[in-house]
Amino acid sequence: MITINEHYRKLRASYLFSDIGKRVAEFKVKNPEKEIIKFGIGDVTRPLPRVCIEAFHKATDEMASESSFRGYGDEQGYAFLREKIAHFDFQSRGADIMADEIFVSDGSKCDTGNFQELFSQNIAVAVPDPVYPVYVDTNVMAGRTREFTDGRYGGLIYLECTARNGFVPDLPKEKPDLIYLCFPNNPTGATITKDRLKEWVDFARQSKSLILFDAAYVAYIRDPSLPQSIFEIEGARDVAVEFRSFSKTAGFTGTRCAYTVIPKSCMAYDSQGNQHALHSLWSRRHTTKFNGVCYMVQRAAEAIYSDEGRAQVTALNDYYLRNAQHIVKEMRALGYECFGGENSPYIWVNTRMDSWKFFDVLLEKAGVVCTPGAGFGKCGEGYIRISAFNSFENVQKGLEKIKKAIR
Amino acid sequence: MITINEHYRKLRASYLFSDIGKRVAEFKVKNPEKEIIKFGIGDVTRPLPRVCIEAFHKATDEMASESSFRGYGDEQGYAFLREKIAHFDFQSRGADIMADEIFVSDGSKCDTGNFQELFSQNIAVAVPDPVYPVYVDTNVMAGRTREFTDGRYGGLIYLECTARNGFVPDLPKEKPDLIYLCFPNNPTGATITKDRLKEWVDFARQSKSLILFDAAYVAYIRDPSLPQSIFEIEGARDVAVEFRSFSKTAGFTGTRCAYTVIPKSCMAYDSQGNQHALHSLWSRRHTTKFNGVCYMVQRAAEAIYSDEGRAQVTALNDYYLRNAQHIVKEMRALGYECFGGENSPYIWVNTRMDSWKFFDVLLEKAGVVCTPGAGFGKCGEGYIRISAFNSFENVQKGLEKIKKAIR
Repeated sequence: MITINEHYRKLRASYLFSDIGKRVAEFKVKNPEKEIIKFGIGDVTRPLPRVCIEAFHKATDEMASESSFRGYGDEQGYAFLREKIAHFDFQSRGADIMADEIFVSDGSKCDTGNFQELFSQNIAVAVPDPVYPVYVDTNVMAGRTREFTDGRYGGLIYLECTARNGFVPDLPKEKPDLIYLCFPNNPTGATITKDRLKEWVDFARQSKSLILFDAAYVAYIRDPSLPQSIFEIEGARDVAVEFRSFSKTAGFTGTRCAYTVIPKSCMAYDSQGNQHALHSLWSRRHTTKFNGVCYMVQRAAEAIYSDEGRAQVTALNDYYLRNAQHIVKEMRALGYECFGGENSPYIWVNTRMDSWKFFDVLLEKAGVVCTPGAGFGKCGEGYIRISAFNSFENVQKGLEKIKKAIR
Repeated sequence: MITINEHYRKLRASYLFSDIGKRVAEFKVKNPEKEIIKFGIGDVTRPLPRVCIEAFHKATDEMASESSFRGYGDEQGYAFLREKIAHFDFQSRGADIMADEIFVSDGSKCDTGNFQELFSQNIAVAVPDPVYPVYVDTNVMAGRTREFTDGRYGGLIYLECTARNGFVPDLPKEKPDLIYLCFPNNPTGATITKDRLKEWVDFARQSKSLILFDAAYVAYIRDPSLPQSIFEIEGARDVAVEFRSFSKTAGFTGTRCAYTVIPKSCMAYDSQGNQHALHSLWSRRHTTKFNGVCYMVQRAAEAIYSDEGRAQVTALNDYYLRNAQHIVKEMRALGYECFGGENSPYIWVNTRMDSWKFFDVLLEKAGVVCTPGAGFGKCGEGYIRISAFNSFENVQKGLEKIKKAIR
């Protein structure tokens, strides 16, 4: 008899964004004439940068003739892309990362979700609260937690991120083996300073733990004093893996490209205490369960590293940052305390009420969709996340509607 | 301390095709002037069908303007693609499959590799021998096997495929819970009749086991009496999942698109014997760990279902089938017993010697790369796999070189 992975039964009913989708669909059925403005799921709306479109067309033409056709690509991703990444995203900022330490993939959701497979069942896992649900759910599926009770899974270490600590977690009293960090943060929009990040790296070195650093929103950092990569921190090469994505950098949510950086000096241990390079373990996983990213997509990703491409990407993200500033300004004018929105496309709003209730108010009275903070964890209760991914016109319109509904 | 998944240590040194790649690279260093002809890894060489190129350009232009831009797509894949698949690949052949039973993905390697995550650790797994290594390796990583000794992993049920049974495995005496089948077969090129496939479906129904049916090479079937889908077999909807790919159908190895079919009536069980729909379990996994396939790629895949597209795909695969026939003819003329090569792009050649030794002979004397049968399992010893994916000119040239080397 074929029996299921019973850990799946511990998962809460469904994925946060599916829940939101269902509420919005119901609202649409009841109010077919009402306009809906989406500040919910963090999905980009602006067209792909011009350089990407051009690279796409050119690569497509290459696939039309036998002499330039490409079948299976390099296992870690094409060198033309990995070399650009290593140079522009790391070496130029003083982070010592080589092209062969980069693995190109089709998304950071896959990478952050799959990475835990490399580790033993009984490691202690620390996640921020509030948190991007994928870190948690994939560890639940893998059997590293107990049941979900009172808003939390038993067996996980929750790193509380609150207004008190500026949404940057304090070092835990427990000794986690695997630590998920995300800066600029989803959902709170918080950033981390070099000093605070250094504390985490030192902690990981001391406890032989591993930091999975999710930097999907790095393209929104404008403050030059903030670190963009964990590898700008001394000692991080031995204890950290970094995830990056083109989704929010270059509008690739529907195009799909991301990458993971695994320094060759980063180690994990077996039960006898012997070291094993994570690079080799992930390479084995990557080549066994994955077959690379579309050639045209890799060419489009490469294109953003030209002078023109970098200028277009900056302009693209400046557009969303202007949205973010407008949201912060208007929500503050309504009397709400706001976090994030600088160096981040997300605004974390203290609603001073139940966050799903506030979600319903915004949906029903204003036709605006946000993301309820409680969906990201216990510490998200009372907050909503507003995403700046939209046209400026829609952002203005949405805020007008919120004003009318709430006043 | 961060500790590793020790099951990875049971894996044989590396993935078959990486091993081959290394031997070829060494040969190149020693013989920089010698031409190498690759009949090894099953990678297509012909350009993408015209309809796909056109669809790609058109979809790329859509991504260049805000009004037609697409971000995250539908979670199971765009309906425009799933509806075409359901109609042309299933309903038109009498297989009762609906569009919402299809999950679009970036590759069958991912899907066949990831699917085992849905099941409990202690199920009994049956794999063919010889076998596509991904089925085995992913179960090793998941901890469902013991060590690798004497050419096999302890704890797996090996379904022997030999000349005696026409490379279609007999029903096992053991009771497997999960059964991997692949037809047209990789690596042997064997096909299965409706009657033999019905025996497997009946066996699975009786034992409440599940068949994972890999039909990646279905586009090469020319014999109208052969089933193309397991869902053409009565009763299969309750006990089977099918994997399909555009890689070998439409030359998408570098473009990346595939799909998995999970009928809503297909069930697995918990330890109390309660039923759970696999469709819901996979949906949960898919939406948690995957973020969809590039929009342009889904449009390119859709394009092959037009009248023009279907004609172009047939012509593309007929080209490779002509190669296959030539390989069979020439290898037989050299006195080798050959299987497959009809209704399949793979030819399975009985070398009457150690298969890695024969691999080395072909590489060193003829500059031809094949795949040693032993790399696919114990029953592959003595055979090599020759792939028909190449230009006809190269196939002719390669066979000439083999002739000279071997005579």
